[in-house]
Amino acid sequence: MNENNMLNLQTYIVDFNKPLKLSSGKVLEKYTLKYETYGTLNKDKSNAVLVCHALSGNHHAAGLYSNEEKPGWWNNMIGPEKPIDTNKLFVVCPNNLGGCHGSSGPSTINPENKKIYGSDFPIITVSDWVDSQKNLMKHLGINRWKFVIGGSLGGMQAFQWSVQYPSMIENCIIIAAAPKLTAQNIAFNEVARQAIMKDPNWCDGNYLENNVSPNQGLALARMLGHITYLSDESMKEKFGRDLKLSKLNYNYDVEFQIESYLRYQGEKFVSGFDANTYLLMTKSLDYFDPIKDMGDMFISNLNITNAKFLVISFTSDWRFPPIRSKEIVKILINNNKRISYSEINADGGHDAFLMNNQDYFDVMKEFIDEACNGI
Amino acid sequence: MNENNMLNLQTYIVDFNKPLKLSSGKVLEKYTLKYETYGTLNKDKSNAVLVCHALSGNHHAAGLYSNEEKPGWWNNMIGPEKPIDTNKLFVVCPNNLGGCHGSSGPSTINPENKKIYGSDFPIITVSDWVDSQKNLMKHLGINRWKFVIGGSLGGMQAFQWSVQYPSMIENCIIIAAAPKLTAQNIAFNEVARQAIMKDPNWCDGNYLENNVSPNQGLALARMLGHITYLSDESMKEKFGRDLKLSKLNYNYDVEFQIESYLRYQGEKFVSGFDANTYLLMTKSLDYFDPIKDMGDMFISNLNITNAKFLVISFTSDWRFPPIRSKEIVKILINNNKRISYSEINADGGHDAFLMNNQDYFDVMKEFIDEACNGI
Repeated sequence: MNENNMLNLQTYIVDFNKPLKLSSGKVLEKYTLKYETYGTLNKDKSNAVLVCHALSGNHHAAGLYSNEEKPGWWNNMIGPEKPIDTNKLFVVCPNNLGGCHGSSGPSTINPENKKIYGSDFPIITVSDWVDSQKNLMKHLGINRWKFVIGGSLGGMQAFQWSVQYPSMIENCIIIAAAPKLTAQNIAFNEVARQAIMKDPNWCDGNYLENNVSPNQGLALARMLGHITYLSDESMKEKFGRDLKLSKLNYNYDVEFQIESYLRYQGEKFVSGFDANTYLLMTKSLDYFDPIKDMGDMFISNLNITNAKFLVISFTSDWRFPPIRSKEIVKILINNNKRISYSEINADGGHDAFLMNNQDYFDVMKEFIDEACNGI
Repeated sequence: MNENNMLNLQTYIVDFNKPLKLSSGKVLEKYTLKYETYGTLNKDKSNAVLVCHALSGNHHAAGLYSNEEKPGWWNNMIGPEKPIDTNKLFVVCPNNLGGCHGSSGPSTINPENKKIYGSDFPIITVSDWVDSQKNLMKHLGINRWKFVIGGSLGGMQAFQWSVQYPSMIENCIIIAAAPKLTAQNIAFNEVARQAIMKDPNWCDGNYLENNVSPNQGLALARMLGHITYLSDESMKEKFGRDLKLSKLNYNYDVEFQIESYLRYQGEKFVSGFDANTYLLMTKSLDYFDPIKDMGDMFISNLNITNAKFLVISFTSDWRFPPIRSKEIVKILINNNKRISYSEINADGGHDAFLMNNQDYFDVMKEFIDEACNGI
């Protein structure tokens, strides 16, 4: 709790009653965002940081609740004297629209008919998230983010911010991301979606009102996801071909440690995550392609922003490997943006963006500290 | 038909009544092997080639039946004046034990109780396959294979032959294989198995006697498999981010061409393949580790063989990439075997071993022709 006090962890829920027009053409008449903040907003509101979460993330990025075993998902990055230093910065992390941790999403009540949204909740894009985050920003009286920061799908939101609201962002940190998904990326997402949607308990997305859950499909999706988050190398180091028992079973029970790990990860995940949110998040990933979607506006808006960029990739990440981050770097260089790029030597695969790594933390800290001069 | 005549395609079914002791300790009292042959066995029976199939393959490697749209799975490789030249060689390709195309397997009748085997069919290892293939060899009166050849799981069988029956193999061609699976390889197999076994129609493996089939699980397994068979690059070239319709649906129907392709592959596969066979084949892959399993016998048997080896890998194969094939090469070099290694520049991913590629065919042809001198 002492650490939480120093972090000044606060949790809020805010209702927005102004309709939000979505990329799909649909409109959310009302919606709720749950968010946490860390640190303190300074008087001129010039120290605000937006942290954007990834596929299975949420608003709880840092700090430890008394009922938790593990702290927030980026607790190693956010806090007093950590790279995102809450002694200087005021950090805002919302649960994304469509999420399942307090913001409006498929598992919440549709205010129009008082029923659980289920499959009625519209698909949300990265651009929609940025719009909703801008409304949260206004609600907080902030005119400009000192930083927008995210990894993976969070990095895509940071990138989108720089071209959607180019004058409202001072620094943009894009970690382990890509300007769009490849066919292979989409393929993995599609298998995950099919696993969920073929679960007989999916009920066309309306499982909650039927008091069931497509847990087996969601567990499969998560197991598959995990393979793509870890590197071949880190799996080898962690599990290799180690057996759970001393010899082979010659049946289909768990035999290798990696099987045990994946089954455990799948089962653990379903207790805290909503299958429709998983579907929605994978679609947001698939759809993300700002260069194509925004057309000429992409370049003209990129020309407007004065933001400094930091792009980070990890050597063993095969979901969004360095070559994909460099596509972003190339776009930024070609448009004369101020950009730093760092390729971090790391074994952790895509998940390296969540792990402790001194080089990574040093790069983050140096960029952030330099930008914070004068705060 | 004319081409089949030149190929001298013959199909056989042979029943073995001598018990086969399996790696698991179980015994198959009787079993059937279905196999095809191409070309003609010469008088001294010195021109026989064993072709071993991979996970979803079967005995129908070459030629075209009148009711088929596509010829056998390696028709580009096997035939008159093709690399495996049936004008000179007599090629034998069995459906592996545990398969679902005519040899004894989970979907055939257990002679002991006259019921469909289902989950009662034992798990078969690569070593067991080699034993059964040796019995087929004896049945054919062949004492020594001129070549044992296979890709992927078929390459593992070829490798196993060289250490299990080291004096019965004159040349060994191991394509797109590895000496054992990595944790990541096993992980993909495990997700595929879970997809099948979590399908409510799986019925603990006894779905046939219940007149149902775990088609959705098997389709998912196949979709996932396909991602690992293709390279990121080939998917990009073939599908990219192309949409099936002209614009996004904002729902979970098929949108991207890659989704359409995967769903089609999944659906097509289930009509001709048995889910229990899929489970069994993935286990054979996971278990394969002759260096560990055979202990000292591995090296002493490798020392016995006079076989010449050809090992081939493909640059874009990420299931068993060149670095994995080189592990085999290293073992062979360290044991003073005569070995050629070729890394073929190819975009096709793991499936490149089935595709047309002049470099690949030239390497195969040269090695085979040289070894055939005097036939």
